Amino acid sequence: MKNICLGIDVGGTTVKMGIFEIEGQLIDKWEVPTRKEEQGRYILEDAAKSIQEKMNEQNISNEAIVGCGIGVPGPVMPDGYVEVCVNLGWHDCYPAKELTNLLGGIPVCCANDANVAALGEMWQGGGKGYKDLVMITLGTGVGGGVILNEKVLSGQHGLAGEIGHICVRVDEEELCNCGGKGCLEQVASATGIVREARRTIEKTDIPSVLRKSVLTITAKDVLDAAKCGDELASKVMETMGFYLGQVMAQVTMIMDPERFVIGGGVSKAGDYLIDIVEKYYIKYTALTKKKASIGLAELGNDAGIYGAARLILD
Amino acid sequence: MKNICLGIDVGGTTVKMGIFEIEGQLIDKWEVPTRKEEQGRYILEDAAKSIQEKMNEQNISNEAIVGCGIGVPGPVMPDGYVEVCVNLGWHDCYPAKELTNLLGGIPVCCANDANVAALGEMWQGGGKGYKDLVMITLGTGVGGGVILNEKVLSGQHGLAGEIGHICVRVDEEELCNCGGKGCLEQVASATGIVREARRTIEKTDIPSVLRKSVLTITAKDVLDAAKCGDELASKVMETMGFYLGQVMAQVTMIMDPERFVIGGGVSKAGDYLIDIVEKYYIKYTALTKKKASIGLAELGNDAGIYGAARLILD
Repeated sequence: MKNICLGIDVGGTTVKMGIFEIEGQLIDKWEVPTRKEEQGRYILEDAAKSIQEKMNEQNISNEAIVGCGIGVPGPVMPDGYVEVCVNLGWHDCYPAKELTNLLGGIPVCCANDANVAALGEMWQGGGKGYKDLVMITLGTGVGGGVILNEKVLSGQHGLAGEIGHICVRVDEEELCNCGGKGCLEQVASATGIVREARRTIEKTDIPSVLRKSVLTITAKDVLDAAKCGDELASKVMETMGFYLGQVMAQVTMIMDPERFVIGGGVSKAGDYLIDIVEKYYIKYTALTKKKASIGLAELGNDAGIYGAARLILD
Repeated sequence: MKNICLGIDVGGTTVKMGIFEIEGQLIDKWEVPTRKEEQGRYILEDAAKSIQEKMNEQNISNEAIVGCGIGVPGPVMPDGYVEVCVNLGWHDCYPAKELTNLLGGIPVCCANDANVAALGEMWQGGGKGYKDLVMITLGTGVGGGVILNEKVLSGQHGLAGEIGHICVRVDEEELCNCGGKGCLEQVASATGIVREARRTIEKTDIPSVLRKSVLTITAKDVLDAAKCGDELASKVMETMGFYLGQVMAQVTMIMDPERFVIGGGVSKAGDYLIDIVEKYYIKYTALTKKKASIGLAELGNDAGIYGAARLILD
């Protein structure tokens, strides 16, 4: 009986892997380093080898495996083609096809890692019970994943869910990594929050505990200070919530999901963050009272392996 | 053999109807007035009666009919429930179920009219050959319809495609019909273009042919003047293109369609309009060179009946 699925989350530093029962229970998880030499050509081999070893160790036969899902840090086209994963060194490849060959022919599905994390949260995390959701990951950058009818939406060019690069500040002068200016990522990511705090310190006289350690401020410092009522930190977080709430309103007016799930390091601020964001989300969806609920992600760094495993169950 | 489908487009003034071959050829189209008395209770009866008459006239038997689609001017929930269609007087109804009963039990599907028009353009209009597209209708208001994998996306609360009510100008002080402020509709609809022209006349000294007839300006006047190089009219259209291009970039970063189709009265400006909008669309999708193409709608007021007929073919 086929009752096991595998999930792989390929990151720039480690490749995370998990073995799951098809009902969603995690049997085992582990990780191996991401070998990036020679354009990352060993990454999939390493993963496949490690999975085979773990399956032997756990006495799981190939016959029990429904298949394997894999999340990769770059756009994935509808046919599985990956033009580039900058952080891995990959160019022009079909990761799912390669991995199928390396894993003795079992079915493999590939999707973008942010979309896959969203699927994981839908399956066993902060989006459990919802079929249409958008996950927003507030980490070093701002990632997004879109789930429609329990399936990842990749988009026609693999761009679906790239909400971190929606322009929210047309008068921004600093460049974003994407080549644009004024992206959501520049104000709502951990990096963006720190940048905004430093700017506000420089441009205003608002008193703040953050002024004592301008060079070493972290996003957590800003959030902790804001929660304690620090005026400057609160202003920074209002700015962040204003832009993120607006983008979530845009998402609602375009595709109207049931649920938003907010994850990533910044989401550790919990209800404080949700409250600020929701205030602006409601303001900018004046058209209707019926709208998506907003919740926190629950799977942390495991969302990727959960989602990858779920990917193969469709 | 079932080779005929029916499309109904219910508007506030007329109910448009069409008989189609399932390959997309229009056999006949006509319309009846929308009887709004008694909360619009006769609208579906009138439509059903008119269709039966036309089928008799055309010698089409019930056995030839695959089914009937209907587009209505309000949000439609995934289960077909319609809470309200303000322009018809409808409250708390299931139009598809009612119409099935009135049409002798043939299958009926119901969706929002803007979404249905988008489906029509995909089937036989400016989106032919594309599976994922977003249609933007620039008329009295700004409507939107989202098609994913050849199907209408209604959203969890029937709001998908309501891009006219994305806030683009946070410092706007005038209210939009939706209760919000600064909606795309307030600057990109025909009404919005006129409003913006009047404002610019009032607030600036820029010379313009439009100053001669401030009270009677139409959107067409603004577009015609802009095409002839009128400085003020050109400024108004740049503003419009700036906001519409931004919203289209938001759509791309969220769901990444293959194609945008622009329709409605304002779209009669043709390539002039497309060029302005595309300039800003490209600017605000700096992340990638691969993006959606932009084209003009082709079906005019018939998009609704085409899309409604296509709706039942899924």
